[in-house]
Amino acid sequence: MEYHFIFDKYTNFIPHICTFVKLKKEKMKSLENILLDRRSIRKYSAEDIDDATLNEILEMGCRASTTGNMQVYSIIVTRDGEMKKRLAPFHFNQKMIVEAPVVLTFCADFNRFNKWCRLRNAEPGYDNFLSFITAAIDAIIVAQTVAIAAEAKGLGICYLGTTTYTANEIIKTLNLPTGVVPVTTITLGVPAEHPEQVDRLPLEAVVHSEVYKDYSSDDINRLYAHKESLPDSLNYAAENNKQTLAQVFTDIRYKKTDNEHFSNTLLNVLKSQDFFNLSSV
Amino acid sequence: MEYHFIFDKYTNFIPHICTFVKLKKEKMKSLENILLDRRSIRKYSAEDIDDATLNEILEMGCRASTTGNMQVYSIIVTRDGEMKKRLAPFHFNQKMIVEAPVVLTFCADFNRFNKWCRLRNAEPGYDNFLSFITAAIDAIIVAQTVAIAAEAKGLGICYLGTTTYTANEIIKTLNLPTGVVPVTTITLGVPAEHPEQVDRLPLEAVVHSEVYKDYSSDDINRLYAHKESLPDSLNYAAENNKQTLAQVFTDIRYKKTDNEHFSNTLLNVLKSQDFFNLSSV
Repeated sequence: MEYHFIFDKYTNFIPHICTFVKLKKEKMKSLENILLDRRSIRKYSAEDIDDATLNEILEMGCRASTTGNMQVYSIIVTRDGEMKKRLAPFHFNQKMIVEAPVVLTFCADFNRFNKWCRLRNAEPGYDNFLSFITAAIDAIIVAQTVAIAAEAKGLGICYLGTTTYTANEIIKTLNLPTGVVPVTTITLGVPAEHPEQVDRLPLEAVVHSEVYKDYSSDDINRLYAHKESLPDSLNYAAENNKQTLAQVFTDIRYKKTDNEHFSNTLLNVLKSQDFFNLSSV
Repeated sequence: MEYHFIFDKYTNFIPHICTFVKLKKEKMKSLENILLDRRSIRKYSAEDIDDATLNEILEMGCRASTTGNMQVYSIIVTRDGEMKKRLAPFHFNQKMIVEAPVVLTFCADFNRFNKWCRLRNAEPGYDNFLSFITAAIDAIIVAQTVAIAAEAKGLGICYLGTTTYTANEIIKTLNLPTGVVPVTTITLGVPAEHPEQVDRLPLEAVVHSEVYKDYSSDDINRLYAHKESLPDSLNYAAENNKQTLAQVFTDIRYKKTDNEHFSNTLLNVLKSQDFFNLSSV
C-alpha cells in the first residue's frame, strides 16, 4: 500500500519532470543550436512584440562590449506604421520594413557623449574619422548581440545593408543630430517562414593560422566549388542572364558605379555629421 | 515484488534525471544569463583551447548574417608565442595578448571575393569606401558572434580597440594583402578572474522611440548620475588628477590629438589597401 502510494507519486511525477526537461530544453535551446541553425527571416506573422520582451532584448544588447565603456551608440525603435512607410524607400522598399512589428536602426553616436563632456568641463575631440569607426564598431556589436538575443527568444531577424547607402535620408527621417550616423538596421518579428539555410564557404576559406595565406586560383576554385554547384546558385546566374554567379554580384547586385556613388554620399554624411575633418585626408 | 522492482528502478532513476537536468542546465546556461551576466575577461588560466572547440566557435561565428552572403571577412588565429609577442606592441602591450591562448584578428576582406570574381570573368568594383564599410560590418558581426559563442562555452573574451589605431603594423605582421584591413581583435581563454560587472547607462539613455530625442542638460545629468556616483568613477578621476570623469576620457584616454593622428593613419591604410579612391572625396 505504501509502495502503491509512492509508486503512484513517482509515476505521476515522472511525466512532469519530462515536461519540465522538455520545456527547459526548448526555452533554453542550446546556444550552439541558436547560432548554428539560424537563418535570416524575411516574413513575419502579424503578432506584435511586447515592450517587456523588446526591453529584455535591448538590455542584453547593451551588456555587450563597448569601447572604454563609452557606449557611443544609439538605437532607434520604429513601431509606428507611418514611420515604417517613411523608412521603406530608404531600404529599397524591402517589404520586411513595413511587415515586421519592430524595426531597429543602430547608430554610431558621439552626440550624447559630447554633450556629457561639455557639461563636465571636458572638451571632446571626436569629430574625426577614427571616432566614427569606433562608434560604428560599438553600434554593430550591439546590433549583433540584439540579433542573437532576439533569436534566442524565438524571434526572427534580418539585417538591411541599405542603411549605409541612404544614411542621409534616414538621418532626416529619424531626426538624427550631428554626431549620429545610422550604420545598420534590423527587422524583428515572429517568423512566418522557415527558409532553407543558405550555404557558407568552408571554414578554411575564411580562417588563417598565424599569417594570412593568400589564395591561389586552385584554392579559389576548391573553396567556391560547393557554392557554385548549388542549384540556387546556378539558377541565380541563369535568371539574371549571367555566365557566372560572380557576375551577378559585380554586374547587378553590388556594382562598381553604385558602390562609388554610395561611397561619396556616405563620406558626405560623415562630413555633415561632424565625423570628418576634411583637412586630415 | 514487482512494485519493489519498479520502485527501485525509479528511485535509482530520479537522481540521474536530476543530474542530467543540472548538467544540461550548466552546459546550456540560458542565453539570457550568458548575455546579461557577461564581463570582459583580461586574465586567463594557462589552459589551452583545443582545436575542436575553437573550430566549433568559429563555425558558429560564420553562420552569422553577412552582406549578400559574400562573407567579406577573414579571421587570423594567433596561437604562436612568438607571433603574440610581435603583435603585443600594436596593442599597446596589453598583457592579454601574450597571456591568452588564442588571439583572433578580424579583418574586412574583399581580397578573396575579388580573386573569385576575376577568375569568373567578373570585374569587381570594391576598391572604395562603401565596400570597406560593408566588409568591416561583416567582420564585426562575425567577431561578436564568435565572442558570444566563446562565452557560451564558458570562455572569456576581451576586445582590443587598438586594432584600428595600428592597422598598418598589424597588416605587415600578419601578411595581409591589399583588400584586407584588420578592424578588431579578441583575446580568448579560460577565465582566471571574475571581475565585478561594470556599469551601463540606463536603457533609456541609448534607446529612442520613433525619432531621436536629443538630450537636454537635465537629461544628461540624470542619465549619467549613477555612473558618476560610483566609487570606481570617483577614484578614476582622482587617480588621474582630473576634476571630472569626462576629463579622463577627453584629456587622457581618447584625446583629440591621438584621435586625429589615428584618423589619418587609418585613412592612409584604407588608401594603401585599395579601399579608398581619393578622387571620390
